[in-house]
Amino acid sequence: MRLAIIGTGAVGASVAELAGEYGHTVTALADSRSAVTDDSGIDVEAALARKREDGRVGSGDPADALDAAYDCLVEATPTTLGDAQPGYDHVRAAFERDRDVVLANKGPVAERYADVRELERESEGRLRFEATVGGAMPVLSTIEDCGPAHVTGIRGVLNGTANFVLSRMAVEGLGYEHVLAEAQDLGVAEADPSFDVEGTDAALKCVIVANVLAQGEREYTLADADVEGIADIPTSALRLASEDGRTVRLIGEVVDGSVRVGPRIVPSTSSLAVSGTENIVQIETANAGRLNVSGRGAGGPETASAVLADVRRLESGTRD
Amino acid sequence: MRLAIIGTGAVGASVAELAGEYGHTVTALADSRSAVTDDSGIDVEAALARKREDGRVGSGDPADALDAAYDCLVEATPTTLGDAQPGYDHVRAAFERDRDVVLANKGPVAERYADVRELERESEGRLRFEATVGGAMPVLSTIEDCGPAHVTGIRGVLNGTANFVLSRMAVEGLGYEHVLAEAQDLGVAEADPSFDVEGTDAALKCVIVANVLAQGEREYTLADADVEGIADIPTSALRLASEDGRTVRLIGEVVDGSVRVGPRIVPSTSSLAVSGTENIVQIETANAGRLNVSGRGAGGPETASAVLADVRRLESGTRD
Repeated sequence: MRLAIIGTGAVGASVAELAGEYGHTVTALADSRSAVTDDSGIDVEAALARKREDGRVGSGDPADALDAAYDCLVEATPTTLGDAQPGYDHVRAAFERDRDVVLANKGPVAERYADVRELERESEGRLRFEATVGGAMPVLSTIEDCGPAHVTGIRGVLNGTANFVLSRMAVEGLGYEHVLAEAQDLGVAEADPSFDVEGTDAALKCVIVANVLAQGEREYTLADADVEGIADIPTSALRLASEDGRTVRLIGEVVDGSVRVGPRIVPSTSSLAVSGTENIVQIETANAGRLNVSGRGAGGPETASAVLADVRRLESGTRD
Repeated sequence: MRLAIIGTGAVGASVAELAGEYGHTVTALADSRSAVTDDSGIDVEAALARKREDGRVGSGDPADALDAAYDCLVEATPTTLGDAQPGYDHVRAAFERDRDVVLANKGPVAERYADVRELERESEGRLRFEATVGGAMPVLSTIEDCGPAHVTGIRGVLNGTANFVLSRMAVEGLGYEHVLAEAQDLGVAEADPSFDVEGTDAALKCVIVANVLAQGEREYTLADADVEGIADIPTSALRLASEDGRTVRLIGEVVDGSVRVGPRIVPSTSSLAVSGTENIVQIETANAGRLNVSGRGAGGPETASAVLADVRRLESGTRD
């Protein structure tokens, strides 16, 4: 497939770099200020080098990417809340041209799910968004394969930054501020870590799952989630828990139509007590009991691999 | 889709019972001695009741099922080795009529993979076989979504009976024969448990994965697997291991083109140290690190759920 990639952060850049390996051609690449397009395929290396040196991937207008010759748009701009712009407009532009859309950006499917599904219905293009929930872990594809009607809920650790901080606090007995600073030094937490440590990122992923499970009966947005982060957990709580064979993790869940994210006490032996930046999702099914998937929930190549899995699924959905 | 189901053991019966819930119609159901067919859909309950009472699902010849009006054949007869018959003939009959095939029977894809792929190439019908590896766990679908070229290997606990026995031996300090008898009483092990405890079942699953990863470059059969079972593990070995924070599990792996099944010492905290009949597979990928999937690897409804996920994937592979 020919891919138009909007966004040149870790994910967009990785998709661009890996596309060839997966048999696809990048015909457009855009950042917030520029774009480079070529119907026969751009020079990805050169474009990313330009980005590193000049701050721009190309000399064209960003909108050129939306007008380029492509089969599938990859939307990998930063997640925005509320109106989910400009990501939402990029999705609409692709669907208006009957092109497929693969999202890494959570905004459109967390905050405007019904609108996006309506755009899809009115288009020949199809939407996929595996990368928005759990990076490379097969969460949405497993729910899709089971059939959303046969999935009764999910629970899991869906943010690696928050989990790293909590598991380090538990192991080292150090305070939150200290471990957060360590995480920032390691590049595991951002300069502004609030999205991660306040639970917003995990909540957006749960909201997306809730929208999928609801199958159009109800629409969820971030406002429907009950969210508590990790900033108020004292080291003493972790120490007490550990004396009882337990620990604390930031757990997100979609159960009985509710979306909740918050610190929970779990047994230290629980599969939910993952360490470091690892993520895990428990998928409760009607006929197959509990399925667990775990792995790296974030990262450039990891998330790109989920994007490219979606592109593959779109390709094989076409009869030759 | 209209399903013709061959096999009325736990899996075939569950597929027949659940088909309606997933939007499909069972137009044929056969056991080894009889069949019942109805182009508008058989009465599954009545057929299974007849099976329980008379030992036969219907009054027709088993071959009637292969001639019935159906879109997808579900082959759920017992796994056989070598020539993989009669399962192989059932697969061929379906492909000769350009029908799709979903396997729960491991034989054709473990022992005659190249032959089966050749039949598929010469047919309009398509083959899927998620249920043959790990029951409801999304193993083959995850490998397919990553792209087999991007999966470097797998490792895991792929047989619930063997794992139950080992984990009970470790927990209870009881001997192999004692725990095996307990497993048989519980219905976790069969009267003839050799397929499970000798590692054959786990090996067949690994051989199937090896065939998928090889992408036609090489064909594997059970004979290519290096297999060792659990019958020679003394309780003392488990006790020694546990004093060192370790335990023993029957691990199957496909690594560097080799297929091996045997008892391995693993840390007690390892994700491989699953308990009871739980299964787990670690999938090593080129771009996304290690993905883990775990859950119930066997059981009627569990395996049926994997069969029905394959039917769903076949359905959505068709452009409307």
